[in-house]
Amino acid sequence: MSTALKNDLLLRALLREPTPRRPIWLMRQAGRYLPEYRASRARAGDFLAMCTNPEIACEITLQPVDRFPLDAAILFSDILTIPHAMNLGLEFEAGEGPRFERPVRTAGDIGKLGVPDPGHELRYVIDAVALARRELAGRVPLIGFAGSPWTVATYMVEGGGSKAFGHIKRMMYESPQNLHRLLELLAKATILYLNAQIAAGAQAVMLFDTWGGILTPSQYEEFSLRYMAQIVDALTRNAEGRRVPNIVFTKGGGAWLAKIAAIGCDAVGVDWTTDLAAARLSVGGRVALQGNLDPSALFASPSTLRAEALRVLDGYGPGPGHVFNLGHGITPDVDPERVAALVEAVRAYVPG
Amino acid sequence: MSTALKNDLLLRALLREPTPRRPIWLMRQAGRYLPEYRASRARAGDFLAMCTNPEIACEITLQPVDRFPLDAAILFSDILTIPHAMNLGLEFEAGEGPRFERPVRTAGDIGKLGVPDPGHELRYVIDAVALARRELAGRVPLIGFAGSPWTVATYMVEGGGSKAFGHIKRMMYESPQNLHRLLELLAKATILYLNAQIAAGAQAVMLFDTWGGILTPSQYEEFSLRYMAQIVDALTRNAEGRRVPNIVFTKGGGAWLAKIAAIGCDAVGVDWTTDLAAARLSVGGRVALQGNLDPSALFASPSTLRAEALRVLDGYGPGPGHVFNLGHGITPDVDPERVAALVEAVRAYVPG
Repeated sequence: MSTALKNDLLLRALLREPTPRRPIWLMRQAGRYLPEYRASRARAGDFLAMCTNPEIACEITLQPVDRFPLDAAILFSDILTIPHAMNLGLEFEAGEGPRFERPVRTAGDIGKLGVPDPGHELRYVIDAVALARRELAGRVPLIGFAGSPWTVATYMVEGGGSKAFGHIKRMMYESPQNLHRLLELLAKATILYLNAQIAAGAQAVMLFDTWGGILTPSQYEEFSLRYMAQIVDALTRNAEGRRVPNIVFTKGGGAWLAKIAAIGCDAVGVDWTTDLAAARLSVGGRVALQGNLDPSALFASPSTLRAEALRVLDGYGPGPGHVFNLGHGITPDVDPERVAALVEAVRAYVPG
Repeated sequence: MSTALKNDLLLRALLREPTPRRPIWLMRQAGRYLPEYRASRARAGDFLAMCTNPEIACEITLQPVDRFPLDAAILFSDILTIPHAMNLGLEFEAGEGPRFERPVRTAGDIGKLGVPDPGHELRYVIDAVALARRELAGRVPLIGFAGSPWTVATYMVEGGGSKAFGHIKRMMYESPQNLHRLLELLAKATILYLNAQIAAGAQAVMLFDTWGGILTPSQYEEFSLRYMAQIVDALTRNAEGRRVPNIVFTKGGGAWLAKIAAIGCDAVGVDWTTDLAAARLSVGGRVALQGNLDPSALFASPSTLRAEALRVLDGYGPGPGHVFNLGHGITPDVDPERVAALVEAVRAYVPG
């Protein structure tokens, strides 16, 4: 049934097995900086139409690996598919980011939510995974993903993106039991969702905790990390009985890397504000690390960009367990030629 | 000339001298959550009109210390007074935040900028300091402040607030020498500005580095900390020859507290994402610490709020050198009664 994987560098690095060179992929590599992505978007109409159409999602997933010699593809999708399936009226307004027509603020709002069936309401994602896996034909592994319960909850409670996170912080302090109910529900939904992605062919999975960094250390453990631990703990093996490596990434979580590593995940994502050598010291070899070039380094001249990439590679140091990536997603205004230069620099890297 | 200070707890704590109890003040304590502030704003017309009118700025500075038994007043002003004086067309649109009509993007733009004379273009700030100092009549110390060169530069280059900071990051990577020229100019302007505030009566000064946390560790040292160090180094004594304690606060700078402490400042601000006990360990007694209650704890019930405040106070532990504060500014939707409860809890604190 499954095609043999021709390039398994990512999977080996995530499991801290030796690799002949460092694997590289880039967060948001299938994104607006690519003209072919913008063409797909124009054809599809809008962002949600792209996500919910498995053929288009598959096409976009493959665009960056067709263009650059990357070591992984990541499913083109969004962290808000689960609340979208909960029927909260998700819209993406051009240039405005996501907005929910019906934010979740009260115990009553939470009581109305059900756990979406990945085979039904989220079927379009699972179909996109299966399709992308087939189209990749073993060239590189396919990464599935979900948002962390905390991060997804921030959008549901705020009703969209936020700067101050006033609504969810108020809920946290005024009625933490409500917030815990919501997070439990999201953790359950995310377990089903990621395991369905694994069953459909995802060869690694990643949890994006974009907003864990706005919490205090104890809130982070109670409201974000705890639910990610539940998910990591419940991930299943793939159809061939192989472990599917997982990556946990909290943006702004540099101070908590050791705590994240302790939940039993395979790899921890590191943003650009943390020194990778310090990060490696703090996790003490328990996990692989993924990161962490400043995404803005893609604005630099090719020679500066190479120097910055080398700094990350040298910063990690010798030995296995590093997946090169940015410290956050590529921005839309990046020149694809710079991405090509970066991928080449990382592939050519020979430890000094 | 100067009135004897009746409450010098803040100054002693900033210099790590013993105090009978922990002093407390709150970032943005003179702000929109207070009905009397909103009344002053309605009278003045808009935000800039409030800042540029010394009588109104003085009135607002005193509002929180008239209402709550706080241990300091902080000048009501804005971190963008310096670029405003550089004639970049600053506007504050209601609900939109600051916007510059003429952003600073090129070497040519930077070449046109001069260092404002605090006695002339910034005279309204200096007059507000003198007036507030007189009106306070020694009740509590008056804190003056400025934005860090890096943070002020982000607004000047982006043309206002930003999420991705694309313009200034591009400048950093494409032409770092231009950015350094801008930061040098801002550091010079800030030294003159803070020393003029000190000469006019500011009894402590604070540097707000709101956006240092978006940098990599090495960028932070090169583009933010280095210029704050120049400023700290050049601060003068007051008219009576006394040292005026200074506080350096980088939001999101939890990983760099030891580096900040090493520049020779008296106190370091700590945001709510860092554990205060860990922060104290990392600065090793070299500086006082200011912070770091999660501002959203002001949404909690009075009993939870007290418990959270105790956690911060106990977290710092025994011995001098702690100024209680929030980890960031008060938000406009806070009930002033909660602020009263918080101040009372901190004043009543007896170490366990």
